[in-house]
Amino acid sequence: MAIRVGWNLAGKADARRRFTFSFPAGVVRSDAMPASRRRLVVVSNRGPIEYDRVDGRRTARRGGGGLVTALSGLIASHDVTWVAAALSDEDVVVAQEHAGTVAAEETDGAGHRFRLRLVEVEAADYDRYYNVFANPLLWFIQHGLWNRPYTPEMTAATRAAWESYRRVNEVIAAAVAAESADSDAVLVHDYQLYLVPRMLRDLGLRTPLSHFTHIPWPGPDAWRVLTADMRLGLLRGLLGADVVGFQTARSVRAFLATAEEYLPEAFVDHVRPRVTLRDGAASVRSYPISIDPAAFELLAAHPAVAAAAERLTADLPERLVLRVDRTDPSKNVVRGFRAFARFLARHPEWHGRVRLLALLDPSRLKIPEYAEYVGAIQRAAREVNDQFADPGWTPIDLRVSDDFALALAAYKHYDVLLVNAIVDGMNLIAKEAPLVNERDGVLVLSENAGAHEEIGGHALSINPFDLEGTADAIAAALAMPDDERRRRAEGIRTHVRAHDVRAWIAAQLADLDSIVGAGGR
Amino acid sequence: MAIRVGWNLAGKADARRRFTFSFPAGVVRSDAMPASRRRLVVVSNRGPIEYDRVDGRRTARRGGGGLVTALSGLIASHDVTWVAAALSDEDVVVAQEHAGTVAAEETDGAGHRFRLRLVEVEAADYDRYYNVFANPLLWFIQHGLWNRPYTPEMTAATRAAWESYRRVNEVIAAAVAAESADSDAVLVHDYQLYLVPRMLRDLGLRTPLSHFTHIPWPGPDAWRVLTADMRLGLLRGLLGADVVGFQTARSVRAFLATAEEYLPEAFVDHVRPRVTLRDGAASVRSYPISIDPAAFELLAAHPAVAAAAERLTADLPERLVLRVDRTDPSKNVVRGFRAFARFLARHPEWHGRVRLLALLDPSRLKIPEYAEYVGAIQRAAREVNDQFADPGWTPIDLRVSDDFALALAAYKHYDVLLVNAIVDGMNLIAKEAPLVNERDGVLVLSENAGAHEEIGGHALSINPFDLEGTADAIAAALAMPDDERRRRAEGIRTHVRAHDVRAWIAAQLADLDSIVGAGGR
Repeated sequence: MAIRVGWNLAGKADARRRFTFSFPAGVVRSDAMPASRRRLVVVSNRGPIEYDRVDGRRTARRGGGGLVTALSGLIASHDVTWVAAALSDEDVVVAQEHAGTVAAEETDGAGHRFRLRLVEVEAADYDRYYNVFANPLLWFIQHGLWNRPYTPEMTAATRAAWESYRRVNEVIAAAVAAESADSDAVLVHDYQLYLVPRMLRDLGLRTPLSHFTHIPWPGPDAWRVLTADMRLGLLRGLLGADVVGFQTARSVRAFLATAEEYLPEAFVDHVRPRVTLRDGAASVRSYPISIDPAAFELLAAHPAVAAAAERLTADLPERLVLRVDRTDPSKNVVRGFRAFARFLARHPEWHGRVRLLALLDPSRLKIPEYAEYVGAIQRAAREVNDQFADPGWTPIDLRVSDDFALALAAYKHYDVLLVNAIVDGMNLIAKEAPLVNERDGVLVLSENAGAHEEIGGHALSINPFDLEGTADAIAAALAMPDDERRRRAEGIRTHVRAHDVRAWIAAQLADLDSIVGAGGR
Repeated sequence: MAIRVGWNLAGKADARRRFTFSFPAGVVRSDAMPASRRRLVVVSNRGPIEYDRVDGRRTARRGGGGLVTALSGLIASHDVTWVAAALSDEDVVVAQEHAGTVAAEETDGAGHRFRLRLVEVEAADYDRYYNVFANPLLWFIQHGLWNRPYTPEMTAATRAAWESYRRVNEVIAAAVAAESADSDAVLVHDYQLYLVPRMLRDLGLRTPLSHFTHIPWPGPDAWRVLTADMRLGLLRGLLGADVVGFQTARSVRAFLATAEEYLPEAFVDHVRPRVTLRDGAASVRSYPISIDPAAFELLAAHPAVAAAAERLTADLPERLVLRVDRTDPSKNVVRGFRAFARFLARHPEWHGRVRLLALLDPSRLKIPEYAEYVGAIQRAAREVNDQFADPGWTPIDLRVSDDFALALAAYKHYDVLLVNAIVDGMNLIAKEAPLVNERDGVLVLSENAGAHEEIGGHALSINPFDLEGTADAIAAALAMPDDERRRRAEGIRTHVRAHDVRAWIAAQLADLDSIVGAGGR
């Protein structure tokens, strides 16, 4: 049987942009069953399977999104019930067939069985919850992207979206509660579902409960754009969990400061990070997400990647600077191009010899800020090329398209990988690409990417707002002696192999055990 | 002798926009000399006197800016040496005449003597320090106004401006050190001079030393746009003081979080707010700035105000909603107009009976973001008027000009005062206007204005991003029963009279005494 595994470039769920390969079943590594096999309920907006109807027959498409990929390891080792919103029309049909308390039996790519409970959500509610409240509102708040003199505005539409956000969280919480009676732990995921933990407590659930936020958590100032009921609702919602998890220690500190600023009833312990409310305490921890190195290396060995690599290497410059991103304003593509221009202006010796290849996956183009950002990216690239190009050499090769095979091929051949995000939850590209790179390429890494807390020491750190510093880092990376390049690249690879996605899951389960075991709530 | 007193509408120094009255000398109240008359050195970018040359004769123009007005009480009660940058050409001549260590003897409006030391600064340095680094860079950071996907960019120009900022702080610190040998305390002011406290310590000064920031201090996230050397420089610069003062408890918390985030060597005490570095500790306190009620009431009684009031009242609507601001993006004028439109849409019963008078003082128009904001203000007003106006009624009366007499006249006659700043250090208008208002007008006040910590309980609080909430507050203010209006208005007046600018100064001096007396550094 051939299965299909989706993989999202930016580690964020986006079904429409998913790249899929077909390869033989059984490649997803199945670890030996651990002694502590547990009954887990995993909750996320998007589930691990999306159903479709093709030629009258139901098909199941697996994978999709970094979250799903990261969590798939759970299925192999534990007895998992996964609760998610029904997204496709066929998802809704499945949800209706299993309405009530019965989840569907499913299998993952490696043949492990799990139970999937899809939750039907009213379409208009889902649209406001997902496309208004979660994106762009929460996403922009948490990445610091609003242009505050003008945006956002809290309007009647925002309030309606907040009500829809509440309702979607409610129907998902109700389904989780129905599935969780005998479970050992409930793991809720990401910014679409901040309210679920508290709702589960209000429904009487006493099971150990964690929430993990995959995107950055900013300090109190960022949350001022929300009305008091919204920001208090989100905070109290999250604090229904026993463990509130984030990618970074920075987000943990920011969350504690936010709870302290807005929750007069909270006792906040900054030393042993913990927020205590009247009805219990939540430990606040960081768990940097990671990848499955073996699965990723396998993916990079796919024939489609080899074919793309052949096209790529037919026209390689002497040195390749690479960036791979979604066209999200948080990715800082415009400043990246402008920094590259500074580098070229200061280093004429590199003219004609280096190229910046920007592989950008178009993202959320129905949101005006995103559409405008694509325009700004294209303008910025054109300006640099107009200024520096000569016959036979174009400094920036900008490709706005979804070509994951090409991205993987480029991962192997870069000399410099530029990750200059304004801020980023983790940035898995900074972990994936060095793993398969064959040239000891140098990572130029934003100090505001989550990955920086782990592998910043092996990278050249940049302040993403600093064009001069970024230009200097590109120059330093290109001029770096081979032995230093090797040492740094090896440092990243060693770290990522030792801190893989299994370690990420294991740390969360262990904490949940020890915190709840110690009488957390 | 007639003296001239300047008063800036927004409580911020801006000499070109200053409104001046002439009235008899002696009106500035001279308190009895307190027992603890001290030798104080006051340091600010702009001094209390600006010199000019008219028809070959030197003239001295007093006042100007909320800071100077606030600090003028010091001169009456203490032996003050004031150190400031030489701004006008004639200032430079004065600075050169008194070069070395000799300050000029001057008198304030009430005839109290003080010493003024103007410091000559290289013109290009001053321009970069003031017009690039302090404004807009620091101002926009501290008010959260950057549009981060695009602005700011740290470029070579920014670095040059940072170097100029350092140099201007240095020459001012050197002058302060020369004047401070025998002083009892040195009081440094505002965001132009963050580096002076540390520089004074490095110059060997052991005098008790405070720094007060008049604008908001945001949390760690806001400072990420600066390069590490800049943000560390600012923090360590400030922490040379014994007392680091802010307008609000919120800014104190944010400063502690910022120190904790960026200064690994710091020990931060959140309970007794204090930051300890290797060479000493700085207490972090809030001192909400205020006004001189007697002087302000006198100003409001000026004949020019009476004349403006006559023009104003000839054409008053049944109810007047007033806003008085500089055209600074932090003032949130555009959302204010759009909220007024929501109010009108929901309350047709008020059509034809209410007018929003917006008296806006044009500000910093050479900075593109400011010029664009004036355009956006005008567009927003036109849109509302296009939608709602009918013959004989224009809902928004927008006047972009510097007419302080009219503002004071309008203070007396508003029914609703709208202060909806995105964020504001204090907003003195919220304290001044209710003091002279004759109609028990209702204050609609942003929860992010510093004044909100003090008088928010007497106002209708709004989230400045919330158009619906602001519209509701306007409606509630217009519908409020007379006795509640009176009670709230009286609450504000009582608070402001009891917490005047003298109390602000006294609290700072008392803290400096007790902290340094207890062996602070």
